[in-house]
Amino acid sequence: MSITTDSPLTEAELASAKRAYELDRKHVFHSWSAQEQLKPMVITRADGSYVWDGEGNKLLDFSSQLVNTNIGHQHPKVVAAIQEQAGKLCTVAPQHANDARSEAARLIAELTPGDLNRIFFTNGGADAVEHAIRMARLHTGKYKVLSAYRSYHGGTALAVNVTGDPRRIPNDYGNAGAVHFHAPFLYRSQFHAATEAEESQRALEHLETAIQLEGASNIAAIILESIPGTAGIMVPPPGYLQGVRELATKYGIIYIADEVMSGFGRAGKWFAIDHFDVAPDLLTFAKGVTSGYVPLGGVAISEEIYSTFAQRPYPGGLTYSGHPLASAAAVATINAMRDESMVENAASLGESVVAPALARMAERHPSIGEVRGTGMFWAIELVKNRATREPLAPYGASSPEMNELIGACKSRGLLPFANFNRIHVVPPLNINAEDLQAGLAILDEVFDLADAHVQG
Amino acid sequence: MSITTDSPLTEAELASAKRAYELDRKHVFHSWSAQEQLKPMVITRADGSYVWDGEGNKLLDFSSQLVNTNIGHQHPKVVAAIQEQAGKLCTVAPQHANDARSEAARLIAELTPGDLNRIFFTNGGADAVEHAIRMARLHTGKYKVLSAYRSYHGGTALAVNVTGDPRRIPNDYGNAGAVHFHAPFLYRSQFHAATEAEESQRALEHLETAIQLEGASNIAAIILESIPGTAGIMVPPPGYLQGVRELATKYGIIYIADEVMSGFGRAGKWFAIDHFDVAPDLLTFAKGVTSGYVPLGGVAISEEIYSTFAQRPYPGGLTYSGHPLASAAAVATINAMRDESMVENAASLGESVVAPALARMAERHPSIGEVRGTGMFWAIELVKNRATREPLAPYGASSPEMNELIGACKSRGLLPFANFNRIHVVPPLNINAEDLQAGLAILDEVFDLADAHVQG
Repeated sequence: MSITTDSPLTEAELASAKRAYELDRKHVFHSWSAQEQLKPMVITRADGSYVWDGEGNKLLDFSSQLVNTNIGHQHPKVVAAIQEQAGKLCTVAPQHANDARSEAARLIAELTPGDLNRIFFTNGGADAVEHAIRMARLHTGKYKVLSAYRSYHGGTALAVNVTGDPRRIPNDYGNAGAVHFHAPFLYRSQFHAATEAEESQRALEHLETAIQLEGASNIAAIILESIPGTAGIMVPPPGYLQGVRELATKYGIIYIADEVMSGFGRAGKWFAIDHFDVAPDLLTFAKGVTSGYVPLGGVAISEEIYSTFAQRPYPGGLTYSGHPLASAAAVATINAMRDESMVENAASLGESVVAPALARMAERHPSIGEVRGTGMFWAIELVKNRATREPLAPYGASSPEMNELIGACKSRGLLPFANFNRIHVVPPLNINAEDLQAGLAILDEVFDLADAHVQG
Repeated sequence: MSITTDSPLTEAELASAKRAYELDRKHVFHSWSAQEQLKPMVITRADGSYVWDGEGNKLLDFSSQLVNTNIGHQHPKVVAAIQEQAGKLCTVAPQHANDARSEAARLIAELTPGDLNRIFFTNGGADAVEHAIRMARLHTGKYKVLSAYRSYHGGTALAVNVTGDPRRIPNDYGNAGAVHFHAPFLYRSQFHAATEAEESQRALEHLETAIQLEGASNIAAIILESIPGTAGIMVPPPGYLQGVRELATKYGIIYIADEVMSGFGRAGKWFAIDHFDVAPDLLTFAKGVTSGYVPLGGVAISEEIYSTFAQRPYPGGLTYSGHPLASAAAVATINAMRDESMVENAASLGESVVAPALARMAERHPSIGEVRGTGMFWAIELVKNRATREPLAPYGASSPEMNELIGACKSRGLLPFANFNRIHVVPPLNINAEDLQAGLAILDEVFDLADAHVQG
């Protein structure tokens, strides 16, 4: 097993990590946190599927950080491309043209489905969602946006308001134009469905009812993660996204596919929506496009929406739109993913290693309510009771039981991704089978701890 | 004079620029533009205060792109720092701690006024403003935000709604909680003031009236660019920002200083607000913090607002908050600016070269209505008529006269920054006196063209 401390941090690295921690506690304000309840892990070194913490422990990164280092840490070709572009030209203003930006746009247009041939670059996923909604509103002349409960679309005011997770709540003043509906989620069905086919059909009926009751003439867009990510990796049942596409077309609503987390190979296809043979009108991306090596996001735009802004100014923009350094990172990332068949690797290891391993765990551990996913994009839903499906942590919160589990993973050399009562298996797409199996073996072991909390 | 084509592009560079243009027109969606009315200049090489266009013309960059390359293009120490950090560690998730991030936070906390000791990092200026407003709303429990007409605060939905320039208008659905007032602008005074002292006093009375009529109990924040940037570089008269600070304190309102454009030396001080000896509660930054080499922005937070989120979660965040590569660029940029006294250089050349040159031009050219600024942050207001002050382009638009002027600058080897009826003089802070004088001489020459349109 390769999870060892075989490349210890130097004394200088340990001292640097110590100072990083002290300064962090004095000066860094962290995302989504009560600042004085944090004890952040220091990371100053990472390589491939591994990170080293501030004490020198080597951890297998089953989180891909925030599900973004799809090519693993410090891929040498992408690092070299960033270094080369840095030496050539770091930045130009968005109104000019630049070779790195043009090539990134060409590659992304080539990969995206349908006629999404025009690329508007942003800094990340939140502003990609903001701009996609703006385009939809101006294109349709309508305001409301339908989005799903149990979703995440970003942290800025508009993006967090279309979000359907608890992070929206303290930011919700009731006036962002966001209306939430239920997407399919058979394990916790709102529709009392017994099968995937039934869940899909009833969820589509529910969506059509929402459109009719909110008023199609008010609705600019439907935005959906093609596979919801942080909210729980609920792979839509067959027929659902095709049905959404048809409803959007029928009612003159723009269909925005949010592929910020699910795109760039995460789900074993370039975009998760490719599993369903559907083309949206707008597609948002970030994270995997550069593996997070340089901040980048964007919107891929259909020719129809593009044409709205061919002769009329698009009233949106940002200083770093199409940033050359970020664009060069995207070009190198996409080329490395292609050259090394990372998307195929994710699909294949997902099917041959993760799926059977999680199925075996689900049999063995009464604390596992459901496992689901595809590619390198899997969720394990932990419960206190399989019959009632009571989660091991309440919705929107943590629990001592989950914290115990997370601590046990770390002490065994595994950095997990956890959300509420779920552990996600979201390692880099290019993880090798041996590491993947080692990480899964640790999870199998620690779920014994969860089993101890199962009642009934 | 150094504006020459002395380093011609190679054949390969010219071919790359040609392809960049073609792909741009096929695939890149540009900020703030009617896509098919664009003919973007290609930039694939830049150095110090110069850029080369796609035809191989060398241009003196009097725009600093979007007023962000404060240290000029491709500063070797900052490029080297980016390359080094890229080789070490490009990215970690925001919940972890990292040495580059900690050091960037320490340096920024050291530079900012007052007790703004806690740094929340974002990707750019717009999300910095979004998060500053969120902090103010949650800290105060109030919703409305007062901001100035003739301002720019960013492109995302909330940021563009507090913006007071025409880019807000197509994004304004009337429900963002933004209320606009008039900041001082003696040349086009709303208050019929004759002197700076009168403008300052009347603008403060106007702001206090706005607070009272909107209701102090409704107002979370006042946000102001310390010196408004794209809107026209209106340096506030003495006493104004002190007065704003006092009103904010008196009425329990958070004072947000937006230093995205005016900060990091642009105005001849580390922050423009340092001219006025005032400390805000929150300060937003971006652009100059890395000179745009890697996208980065952020909010500097007072201890009082920090304490609100010490034990209660801050409901906001982003994947790339405190991105190591961006943080390393910030550290290197700040150190280079200090080591090479760039802020002092900007202040000194502003006073010794720009101010007298613009004063001479204002005497010589009847098309110049006013010149104003400080540091490397100057505006030239062009008019058709000095008596009526009718602008050379209407508010919110361009004009054939302004386009002629911009073209004449470019054909003489100067890349200008233009907005409506204004030309801004905003070169890198470390421009040398010879280049600065050469650029100003070109402006002096082309204003003859503007003079030909002066009536009355």
